[in-house]
Amino acid sequence: MKDSVNIGLLGLGTVGTGVVNVLTANAHEISQKTGVPVNIKKILVRNLNKVRNIAAGAVLTTNADDILNDNDIDIIVEVMGGEQPAKDYMLRALNAGKNVVTANKDVVAKFGRELFSAAEANHVDFMFEASVGGGIPIIRPLKQCLAANKLSEVMGIVNGTTNYMLTKMTNEKLDYETVLAEAQAKGYAEADPTADVGGFDAARKIAILASIAFNARVSLEDVDVEGITNISPVDIEYARELGYVIKLLAIAKESEACGINARVHPAFIPLNHPLAAVGDVFNAIFVRGDAVGETMFYGRGAGALPTASAVAGDIVDVARNLRHNVNGRILCTCFDQKPFCPVENTSSSYYVRLLVEDQPGVLAAIAGAFGAHNVSLNSVIQKRKVNNCAELVLITYHVSDANIRKALTTIKDMSVLTTVQNVIRVEAQQID
Amino acid sequence: MKDSVNIGLLGLGTVGTGVVNVLTANAHEISQKTGVPVNIKKILVRNLNKVRNIAAGAVLTTNADDILNDNDIDIIVEVMGGEQPAKDYMLRALNAGKNVVTANKDVVAKFGRELFSAAEANHVDFMFEASVGGGIPIIRPLKQCLAANKLSEVMGIVNGTTNYMLTKMTNEKLDYETVLAEAQAKGYAEADPTADVGGFDAARKIAILASIAFNARVSLEDVDVEGITNISPVDIEYARELGYVIKLLAIAKESEACGINARVHPAFIPLNHPLAAVGDVFNAIFVRGDAVGETMFYGRGAGALPTASAVAGDIVDVARNLRHNVNGRILCTCFDQKPFCPVENTSSSYYVRLLVEDQPGVLAAIAGAFGAHNVSLNSVIQKRKVNNCAELVLITYHVSDANIRKALTTIKDMSVLTTVQNVIRVEAQQID
Ligand SMILES: NC(=O)c1ccc[n+]([C@@H]2O[C@H](COP(=O)([O-])OP(=O)(O)OC[C@H]3O[C@@H](n4cnc5c(N)ncnc54)[C@H](OP(=O)(O)O)[C@@H]3O)[C@@H](O)[C@H]2O)c1
Ligand SMILES: NC(=O)c1ccc[n+]([C@@H]2O[C@H](COP(=O)([O-])OP(=O)(O)OC[C@H]3O[C@@H](n4cnc5c(N)ncnc54)[C@H](OP(=O)(O)O)[C@@H]3O)[C@@H](O)[C@H]2O)c1
Repeated sequence: MKDSVNIGLLGLGTVGTGVVNVLTANAHEISQKTGVPVNIKKILVRNLNKVRNIAAGAVLTTNADDILNDNDIDIIVEVMGGEQPAKDYMLRALNAGKNVVTANKDVVAKFGRELFSAAEANHVDFMFEASVGGGIPIIRPLKQCLAANKLSEVMGIVNGTTNYMLTKMTNEKLDYETVLAEAQAKGYAEADPTADVGGFDAARKIAILASIAFNARVSLEDVDVEGITNISPVDIEYARELGYVIKLLAIAKESEACGINARVHPAFIPLNHPLAAVGDVFNAIFVRGDAVGETMFYGRGAGALPTASAVAGDIVDVARNLRHNVNGRILCTCFDQKPFCPVENTSSSYYVRLLVEDQPGVLAAIAGAFGAHNVSLNSVIQKRKVNNCAELVLITYHVSDANIRKALTTIKDMSVLTTVQNVIRVEAQQID
Repeated sequence: MKDSVNIGLLGLGTVGTGVVNVLTANAHEISQKTGVPVNIKKILVRNLNKVRNIAAGAVLTTNADDILNDNDIDIIVEVMGGEQPAKDYMLRALNAGKNVVTANKDVVAKFGRELFSAAEANHVDFMFEASVGGGIPIIRPLKQCLAANKLSEVMGIVNGTTNYMLTKMTNEKLDYETVLAEAQAKGYAEADPTADVGGFDAARKIAILASIAFNARVSLEDVDVEGITNISPVDIEYARELGYVIKLLAIAKESEACGINARVHPAFIPLNHPLAAVGDVFNAIFVRGDAVGETMFYGRGAGALPTASAVAGDIVDVARNLRHNVNGRILCTCFDQKPFCPVENTSSSYYVRLLVEDQPGVLAAIAGAFGAHNVSLNSVIQKRKVNNCAELVLITYHVSDANIRKALTTIKDMSVLTTVQNVIRVEAQQID
């Protein structure tokens, strides 16, 4: 039994500083739960001369070998970010028999398979609770608490930046460019916001969640991705009028008939859905299982301390395992090979906003084109003119993605159509 | 390493039947995660002649010794309910070196200390995820994912029966007696509804949650309990008008200044609080920690399958531990002795509804009496007459419980007062 646990921290930025602060502030609680003190022995940084906002103690180094080759270090905590060299460092650590805790969704989504296998082969822990949903407990609940369920759906608001932007657009009726500038000014969005607003950050997270939920290998390339750049205040206003709110959702579903489908896109959700009330930078993940029914996990999806909470929770778990010499216990490479469901085979209802010529018979012609492709309409709003055109807003019944695409292709060729302004899925499945 | 795991099930009612069905339906997923098949070997019931809605396989018995003395049984799953003989059976099982999984909040709240110690002494697991919040993962997230936090608050809707009733009263403007009768007809409320409507079921659950969250020993006697029998449609309507909803909350808070306070009572919560939208039989638990900030866990707090989901999740965890021979690993009897904060020392704002004489100067007199005890008023509504009296509704600022009690004692003695109709706490702390 070890009498202390030593950590090598890779990175001392937002999350790294948070980890140092949490381990320091709550040292009593943590050593009570692990049975031994947990020390940060060495920290990898790029720049030794930066002013650091942490209590002294650990040695700073710019040389990863100082840490990875230190036999006294039991746990590597990777919070430097980026794919490389983070992934190589983690792989080296696992192969050297060190346990690894990471917050790095890019690496877990892309190289998870390789890292899980290395951890299993070396009988060490590889934990990544912080990689999805920041401080929200979601990886461990999925893996353990819900382990006896067949899960059919994981659906979440997993990107705080875009949720902040959509919440602002909704509550203050601002447009996309204005809220993006504001999110950048507040530090919520990067100078290059593509990873967030383009949906790619959310896509990495849903790939991780889907892999665990369905016991399968889902990677970024398996996720259909659409961002929020196309959402306008007009769409948000129509959503409100129809009893919905627009959220950027990361969705993974598995059906016996078709397989796994994973995607990220803006969606209408009914105002009474538990995800509808999740505002600002908050995240939430909704999970449906055959036994548990519907559950939801809510909290802060990012930020120094919330993310550090998840990282430090993993550290406590690894330290307990170290104390009892049982690291690598819950790993399981027993993933199933599962089919993927092409997006054309999925179905939902859709919101469609069109500009059409303002003359008699146009609505009938458009409705006829939808009908010809088996797309029936649930509701229609026509009340505004835009540049002399009539604005037509339609909500379809549940239809297949293939059919709505075909119908829209036909409609785009019709002479009465000016433009298809937007097409947004409606995630209308109610809580039973 | 064992080549199969054998369960002895105590009880085959609502939850027991659910457990059998989940273990049968998801046998493939479960054995994949545990590495070995999980079998139910024997089941304890009271009546062998009842028709049972489960697949054949296990042996039914009315003799607990058949199960507790069977050396082949690794896990006792207690879903018979009640304090005795359930507690004795569990204690015997632990002392015989068997792992125990239970859904029994009564026993965990009352005898938890004794059972944890027995489990630790015998190096076996004692798990009780299903005892609070049904299928909602909450015990494991608190113990593990949030282990590095100092938690300051756990607040939840943990009784489905009363939440169903309050939701009905709110949405359909029905009175207490009507919805109680309906809840009984639907099987949501027992013939004797005291445990639910009196708040005692919720009190047991908050005692369990507070013990874990604060690393302390909190038992039923430490919880101040008030039920919902006193809530009328009038209060619900005033709440709505003021931007609140009334929920039966189970609350535990720890402050450095005063210690731990645990209580169950109806409360006003702001409509934008994440708990406000939790309707019908759903449960949700809100947790605040120094690192994680605010998180919430939502789902089905009862029912055969949701509860079985939690029980079976525990079984999977015990089975994994069995396979690696590490049962008893995460136990920790390192509880702190902590002071309790008497309810008089807690503070909040309050809703007070009074009937007073309808004459000039009465409002000034009442307001003066509050002011004399340092209770200042945030808002006042006077708009209705009831039996020739004026109905006065007041919301106070944040005041100490001691002061509001003193003020109400003074007011009760005033000749202008007819009756104090209701006094309800306002849990107004916002999400930052
Ligand atoms: N920020 C969040 O809210 C959040 C939430 C969830 C997950 N995450 C994940 O957590 C990880 C860290 O994010 P962060 O926001 O903390 O990043 P950050 O603030 O940019 O910090 C990165 C740290 O790593 C160091 N570093 C980077 N590359 C290095 C290299 N090649 N060699 C040595 N040191 C290097 C930097 O050193 P210097 O200090 O010397 O520059 C810095 O200390 C990322 O994977 C991110 O996706 C972040
Ligand atoms: N129901 C829920 O939604 C729910 C949710 C969370 C937690 N729980 C907890 O789960 C536990 C079980 O609840 P339940 O609703 O499943 O109860 P239940 O339907 O009344 O079932 C109790 C079962 O235990 C057996 N039993 C009771 N006392 C016995 C005795 N002395 N000897 C032998 N067998 C005995 C009964 O046998 P017979 O079948 O022969 O009568 C029956 O099969 C309770 O602790 C409850 O608090 C329940």
